[in-house]
Amino acid sequence: MIKVGILGYGNLGRGVEAAVTKSDDMELLAIYTRRDPKTVTVKTNTTVKSTADLDTGKEDIDVLVICGGSATDLPEMTPKYAKLYNVIDSFDTHARIPEHYTNVDNASKAAGKIGLISCGWDPGMFSLNRLYATSILPDGQAYTFWGKGVSQGHSDAIRRIEGVVDARQYTVPVEDALRRVRNGENPELSTREKHTRECYVVVEEGADKARIEKEIKEMPNYFSDYDTTVNFISEEELKKNHSGLPHGGSVIYTGETGFDGNKHVIEYSLNLDSNPEFTGAVLTAYARAIDRLNKEGVTGAKTVFDIAPAYLSPVSADELRAHFL
Amino acid sequence: MIKVGILGYGNLGRGVEAAVTKSDDMELLAIYTRRDPKTVTVKTNTTVKSTADLDTGKEDIDVLVICGGSATDLPEMTPKYAKLYNVIDSFDTHARIPEHYTNVDNASKAAGKIGLISCGWDPGMFSLNRLYATSILPDGQAYTFWGKGVSQGHSDAIRRIEGVVDARQYTVPVEDALRRVRNGENPELSTREKHTRECYVVVEEGADKARIEKEIKEMPNYFSDYDTTVNFISEEELKKNHSGLPHGGSVIYTGETGFDGNKHVIEYSLNLDSNPEFTGAVLTAYARAIDRLNKEGVTGAKTVFDIAPAYLSPVSADELRAHFL
Repeated sequence: MIKVGILGYGNLGRGVEAAVTKSDDMELLAIYTRRDPKTVTVKTNTTVKSTADLDTGKEDIDVLVICGGSATDLPEMTPKYAKLYNVIDSFDTHARIPEHYTNVDNASKAAGKIGLISCGWDPGMFSLNRLYATSILPDGQAYTFWGKGVSQGHSDAIRRIEGVVDARQYTVPVEDALRRVRNGENPELSTREKHTRECYVVVEEGADKARIEKEIKEMPNYFSDYDTTVNFISEEELKKNHSGLPHGGSVIYTGETGFDGNKHVIEYSLNLDSNPEFTGAVLTAYARAIDRLNKEGVTGAKTVFDIAPAYLSPVSADELRAHFL
Repeated sequence: MIKVGILGYGNLGRGVEAAVTKSDDMELLAIYTRRDPKTVTVKTNTTVKSTADLDTGKEDIDVLVICGGSATDLPEMTPKYAKLYNVIDSFDTHARIPEHYTNVDNASKAAGKIGLISCGWDPGMFSLNRLYATSILPDGQAYTFWGKGVSQGHSDAIRRIEGVVDARQYTVPVEDALRRVRNGENPELSTREKHTRECYVVVEEGADKARIEKEIKEMPNYFSDYDTTVNFISEEELKKNHSGLPHGGSVIYTGETGFDGNKHVIEYSLNLDSNPEFTGAVLTAYARAIDRLNKEGVTGAKTVFDIAPAYLSPVSADELRAHFL
């Protein structure tokens, strides 16, 4: 049995908890929290412990799944715990991946452990599909579309506006753009042409809706480059119709081969009821892989690009060849 | 530069020729044929040589791409040349993969080389997607649909009927089955419910069309389990509208996570103008991978399951992390 620890018990931590529970070859040893463990109630009967226990380096875990935020948690936590355990995270600040990789690589190598970073679906499964497609068809172009799905960052940004009680923001790919890409037209698409943003907003009684709508639509980076629609709804409606965290999207790659201009379209798409549960399931499969690789003597930082697919599966190599190939 | 040899110059060999030509880090050393090399004209200015040259084991190639048929060529050729070179094939008789693997593994290990078998899109990219999806969502189900595309085996089967001059058979996925699977209904689908078969047939003048249509539709294994339509057309029309070899299909995986029945759909689909050119492009990317792995000291038989994705790309690991993750 692979002994797994989870650090952090938000949506993603709960997703990993569920995925490990469903994996016959894994056992969930403990959930670690920075809060007082007594105040944290978990879904399964897993022990909740303090990060102080984790810091001793003596916890009997094969892989620690670090479920923190990319802005401040992971840049600090992953290198820290990579000195003690095999670790895996879902670091998703694309621009800072090289720096994060180097920090984790130094820590993991010194400890004789593996640190797998930026795992999930984007970065993660979408990255893999961009890599496979470009390697097969070097003469081509990759397009990534996200949604329809909830962007937590954008929802948070709306919540910070004065007069807003709660909000949910959906990123929606533009159908016409999808159609043109799938059609092999290789269009040049602006930010506005690829996605729209749909906002569902609950406001305080008497709030100035016109001002709030304007503030949302003109917010730089988040909304100003998009066609944005704002719907004001009641708190009840938000709870009833917008409490899930669905997401998904597509990597569409179009490329040419040969001397006669033959075209090919490769599409990988996800349609997810729960973004954190799916991401947790991806992290869990890769936790299995790095436990095995570390037992074979591999150390240092890794990404999904470095892991041979067979390592993700609990099924033997013979069975995989006989039934999955 | 990775020096590549191609054995066999049919449609697939031509596909590999084109793909190697488009790869900046590869050079095509020679195309080997069992025919008299003088009678073989190739698309590029590559040297054509006899398999007798290959048999010496002295050809200066890093990887030999074996482009033969799975029925009789590959079971004999791949183990034979695995004793001499790094080899790669597209062996696609699913039931005989374990036996083929063992034969190639013994030969490759003895030679200190790698033999990668069953590469292409199915087996190949489709297999990878079945494996990734099942590993991430163990509680789920995989569906594979093929087409719309030309099945060469079925086209050949029609050509063997008395009175038939030429034929082209398209495998077509049933739209309603696709819709139900994508919808997460997890349907049990019979062979007939998943695909239909469309035949375009050119017959001799005065041939008994009713008899030919009946023979096609009742042909066991090939057509009797499917809803088959037969269209009699002229030789000119066949040449004009049915001379390509398009193919494709989808691996659709539906699975659940968590304790609230959240559902997820993962779909990988291919839409290919040229089946042999795309397959040749996949073989070429994996040829790069096995050259590198062998230079690192890896030997023995491999499949796509055993190859970490980064090995397929000519781009450095740093660049991949910075731009593809």
